[in-house]
Amino acid sequence: MIIQFVKNISASSKESILQMVKAQEYKTTEVLTQQGHYLICIGKKEFDLRTLGHMPGIADIHRVSDDYKLVSRKWKVNRSQIDLGDGVVIGEGSLSIMAGPCSIETEQQVEGTLTHLQANGVRIMRGGVFKPRSSPYAFRGLGVEGLKMWYQLARAKGIKIVTEVMQVSQIAEMYDYVDVFQVGARNTQNYNLLDELGKVDKPVMIKRGISGTIEELLYSAEYVFSGGNEKLLLCERGIRTYEKASRNTLDINAIPILKEKTHLPVIADPSHGIGIREFVEPVALASVMAGADGIIYETHQQPEKAASDGQQTLDFEESARLINRLQKAYALVQSF
Amino acid sequence: MIIQFVKNISASSKESILQMVKAQEYKTTEVLTQQGHYLICIGKKEFDLRTLGHMPGIADIHRVSDDYKLVSRKWKVNRSQIDLGDGVVIGEGSLSIMAGPCSIETEQQVEGTLTHLQANGVRIMRGGVFKPRSSPYAFRGLGVEGLKMWYQLARAKGIKIVTEVMQVSQIAEMYDYVDVFQVGARNTQNYNLLDELGKVDKPVMIKRGISGTIEELLYSAEYVFSGGNEKLLLCERGIRTYEKASRNTLDINAIPILKEKTHLPVIADPSHGIGIREFVEPVALASVMAGADGIIYETHQQPEKAASDGQQTLDFEESARLINRLQKAYALVQSF
Amino acid sequence: MIIQFVKNISASSKESILQMVKAQEYKTTEVLTQQGHYLICIGKKEFDLRTLGHMPGIADIHRVSDDYKLVSRKWKVNRSQIDLGDGVVIGEGSLSIMAGPCSIETEQQVEGTLTHLQANGVRIMRGGVFKPRSSPYAFRGLGVEGLKMWYQLARAKGIKIVTEVMQVSQIAEMYDYVDVFQVGARNTQNYNLLDELGKVDKPVMIKRGISGTIEELLYSAEYVFSGGNEKLLLCERGIRTYEKASRNTLDINAIPILKEKTHLPVIADPSHGIGIREFVEPVALASVMAGADGIIYETHQQPEKAASDGQQTLDFEESARLINRLQKAYALVQSF
Amino acid sequence: MIIQFVKNISASSKESILQMVKAQEYKTTEVLTQQGHYLICIGKKEFDLRTLGHMPGIADIHRVSDDYKLVSRKWKVNRSQIDLGDGVVIGEGSLSIMAGPCSIETEQQVEGTLTHLQANGVRIMRGGVFKPRSSPYAFRGLGVEGLKMWYQLARAKGIKIVTEVMQVSQIAEMYDYVDVFQVGARNTQNYNLLDELGKVDKPVMIKRGISGTIEELLYSAEYVFSGGNEKLLLCERGIRTYEKASRNTLDINAIPILKEKTHLPVIADPSHGIGIREFVEPVALASVMAGADGIIYETHQQPEKAASDGQQTLDFEESARLINRLQKAYALVQSF
Repeated sequence: MIIQFVKNISASSKESILQMVKAQEYKTTEVLTQQGHYLICIGKKEFDLRTLGHMPGIADIHRVSDDYKLVSRKWKVNRSQIDLGDGVVIGEGSLSIMAGPCSIETEQQVEGTLTHLQANGVRIMRGGVFKPRSSPYAFRGLGVEGLKMWYQLARAKGIKIVTEVMQVSQIAEMYDYVDVFQVGARNTQNYNLLDELGKVDKPVMIKRGISGTIEELLYSAEYVFSGGNEKLLLCERGIRTYEKASRNTLDINAIPILKEKTHLPVIADPSHGIGIREFVEPVALASVMAGADGIIYETHQQPEKAASDGQQTLDFEESARLINRLQKAYALVQSF
Repeated sequence: MIIQFVKNISASSKESILQMVKAQEYKTTEVLTQQGHYLICIGKKEFDLRTLGHMPGIADIHRVSDDYKLVSRKWKVNRSQIDLGDGVVIGEGSLSIMAGPCSIETEQQVEGTLTHLQANGVRIMRGGVFKPRSSPYAFRGLGVEGLKMWYQLARAKGIKIVTEVMQVSQIAEMYDYVDVFQVGARNTQNYNLLDELGKVDKPVMIKRGISGTIEELLYSAEYVFSGGNEKLLLCERGIRTYEKASRNTLDINAIPILKEKTHLPVIADPSHGIGIREFVEPVALASVMAGADGIIYETHQQPEKAASDGQQTLDFEESARLINRLQKAYALVQSF
Repeated sequence: MIIQFVKNISASSKESILQMVKAQEYKTTEVLTQQGHYLICIGKKEFDLRTLGHMPGIADIHRVSDDYKLVSRKWKVNRSQIDLGDGVVIGEGSLSIMAGPCSIETEQQVEGTLTHLQANGVRIMRGGVFKPRSSPYAFRGLGVEGLKMWYQLARAKGIKIVTEVMQVSQIAEMYDYVDVFQVGARNTQNYNLLDELGKVDKPVMIKRGISGTIEELLYSAEYVFSGGNEKLLLCERGIRTYEKASRNTLDINAIPILKEKTHLPVIADPSHGIGIREFVEPVALASVMAGADGIIYETHQQPEKAASDGQQTLDFEESARLINRLQKAYALVQSF
Repeated sequence: MIIQFVKNISASSKESILQMVKAQEYKTTEVLTQQGHYLICIGKKEFDLRTLGHMPGIADIHRVSDDYKLVSRKWKVNRSQIDLGDGVVIGEGSLSIMAGPCSIETEQQVEGTLTHLQANGVRIMRGGVFKPRSSPYAFRGLGVEGLKMWYQLARAKGIKIVTEVMQVSQIAEMYDYVDVFQVGARNTQNYNLLDELGKVDKPVMIKRGISGTIEELLYSAEYVFSGGNEKLLLCERGIRTYEKASRNTLDINAIPILKEKTHLPVIADPSHGIGIREFVEPVALASVMAGADGIIYETHQQPEKAASDGQQTLDFEESARLINRLQKAYALVQSF
């Protein structure tokens, strides 16, 4: 059960509500986000809502049978939109395209990518400055200095930044230069990181775990939301299966299922989802057709020379063609 | 290496070619299909094609590095089309829609389905008369008698039949009443069945195994082709993963990968691929966008009363809407 | 519910029982095996057993909540033993070792293997004469002629034969030369084959499907049992997972779980379960410790020269060492 | 290639070696652990070791073809032992048993567990004070205060502590009260945490990721080792598969494979590996038979009342029986 408090609820009203709920042997978690003030109530008893409904301080009460509460569509039927400012809004009503290299490498590379994106009407650039790598001896990214350089160039062109944060201590140093914090597939269940991102007032995009279930992804989002941050995106990026003909298996089913279960926007990552450059386009188009609110993919001036993930990275010509086709596919879905 | 013989090659020419190839320590398999006469040559040595190229009786020689040969696109760049007669052709150039119930149940049900399909321009009806069921105590289908009834009604309306064959002994009894033999996911590696279907001159659609790899599917097709039957379709129907929010995980990646590896038409089955009625449509549309040549799905007058698979079966209204949208999605893909 | 009839139940008694059960809207399947006569009753109503218990012709009634009935331990608490004759008994009370090559190749090979087995007290030899192979161009086994040769040599030494049957038509031609019919992992859900093996009075060992669940394996066994054949063995042989460091992942958990769920003997196949020669021994020993009633593994005079599966095949020295250690491990488990 | 420096290598010798290696276009990482001083050299060229071998400052040079270097058995054939002090040594030569509750709950609970362990000769107690939980509303553990309480009671009885660390900031606060830091399955690829644990001089046990490969586990260990900490244990705890009859699938194959690939001790966790109380014993025994150097499992006075994981937790009677049998199984393996 989610009890939505009125704005500026009085301390005494809150206390009365808490006592009433606890008397029913419910455990409560108070959640104050940028947009609302909630009491999450978890218990087993049947609850007569009439005993609560008339109490002062209550704006609304929602029964939510899912074990995740705040991210469930059962209480929030209208889909969430995430406003990045300057007219860039993610969610229902438009297709968000996020593109850029796997790793931020050089000023020239960033400049080239920004020019390409701008020319094709893309408002969000992806790129990594902290890279999680299997081997400790591999390139781990340019770090915060690279992020600052990127930020200056991107702001000049009005382009927003989505980039991965790998640990709690990076949140503060990255904060001023990031529009969307990305939680990578290896960190989907790094609960300390999720807890801290719950305290931030910038959007967070959580990638599904390498072998994470849809339910686990929703729980991870619940961590951030219940920590106080409603600005959330979910990203399907392929799961690990026995099939070795592709890097991962993009779970196309997850897109309509997530759209049914949660009010949060759902993004698809075809680059990691299949991992093979020549097939990124059909998988991206399929994801839009399945209902994705956005697509995040990798593009680079010279994929062959990219510091990482070159085998799944589009060149700018392929990228421009994809953007064009994504828009057509989205227009078709919208017409249905 | 595939050596393509000329039509009506003389015995002496063939003998000379065989001796030449065997002298290089190659193992050979002679394949005579409805459409061609081939010698499949498997060996490790480098082979100087000039020693062969001028020999009488050879129409063409193709190097094929894949372990499956005849189904590979490396020698047959033009995509195969399967002609079912009466203007019904599966493959490149049109989207094949195959729809119908999980199980054939009654005359009235078949009649109703045919009427629905005809009204929506669908030329192929699916349905099961032999049902593979986990439990020996479950409904196993109407058998050949049901097939005959279905055939009579379908022929009257000019609609073709695709249905599952489960064992060698059924091939002959089903033969006269079937347009496409379907090999089910539990039989993808039933090699005796594949061998026998190689001797038939009717099309065969092979479903990917429950946890089959893409490569295994191609090998299974190679069994049928090398047995003498070129009329082959492949079907992606979802694989088994750890995710339990859907019945199977439709492997959207498999569609572009198969289209790259083989010249055979690729069909997608969203009904089994996700297993949840309300999500069949987005997954079907996604499959077309990913490059599928056809869609096979389950529809029934009253899905709630279907003898099997009701939870993933569309009613006729949903089916009509899907057909309409599939055509639009296919038109968009074709325009790219 | 399983109703066990008395031996030679009268037609009228049976009819009365059938009417009583059907009146409760239960579906029934009558099963006559080598050892008993049963009525499998499937329905949803609560059933007052007292209304049945006193009827003539009923030896016993068992409630079985599992969906598989006859193979469940819920009605047959005592574990089944399979008697192959000549003092060779599989099941509780002794460890059954089955060893031999992947493929039967030559008389000399069979002779050598038999001598090795006899010297080490092994009474059952495994080997393939019909080989399911991914590629149609690979060696498919010696067929029935190879089986006859093997049979003659094995009988002379009092050694029993377990070998794979791939299709219905082979059952009759193999019958006289086989002690245990093996159903391979690709055929676990080949229901026609299971149906036919239900009519045979020789033991059947069913391997778990390549990605089969434990429950599906039990259902497959239910097919054979309900067809009339109680002489059943189950075999854990590794499942398909994302891990590529081994050929398959032997599911050690399946052994105690199967032993809990069914009264049938459980065999483990470490050769396929890990697929790497040097690690067959530890996995075999682990399987015994987990409760396996038997071990089936591959051994060959010269594994490097084996026609198939050489990479997971032990030589005779390794095999002799393994047999010795298996006996010690089994003795330890028995002492607990 | 791993170059092992002599102790107290001179700056000039090191510089000469570095120049020589870099001249061959090798990338280098210098590693100083508690026990050695190494230069990890990664490059593609063939390298003539004679050009290096005679240089001053070099103790030894090892070619290591694996991509992980320091944890590979290719350079360190002798197995590592981890000395926890007071005669508690993990690794080859003895079986390490680690037991205790999922969560540390109360003083009384800890006291009871310690008494049980001491009575059965177990020297290491497991327990969680920071609990990673899917839902943000679930019990997350007693935190550092619980750890201090536990430490005081355990030290009094000479029992060592292994417990999970979830984030970088916890390392310092936990340091004084921990004998082995455990990295949980959700954090196996939390590289920042691994980096920091590389700087600690206390042992670290890394659990395999929920769907981690064996190779990824070795890479994660390489992070810690190359960070400076050689005191490492690896733990197989079951992987995620499609099978739902058990919580996870303990990968018994991983035990011999890891023992072949790395010199680090390998521990098995049957509690999480199968997740069903009554089957923990057979899986634990199987793990010893497969070559595990230790077993970690969950036990509690009253499993039914445990704050978490009760369904897979042994009571003290079952635990005592298991310890006794584990020792017998280990003795048998040692005798081989």
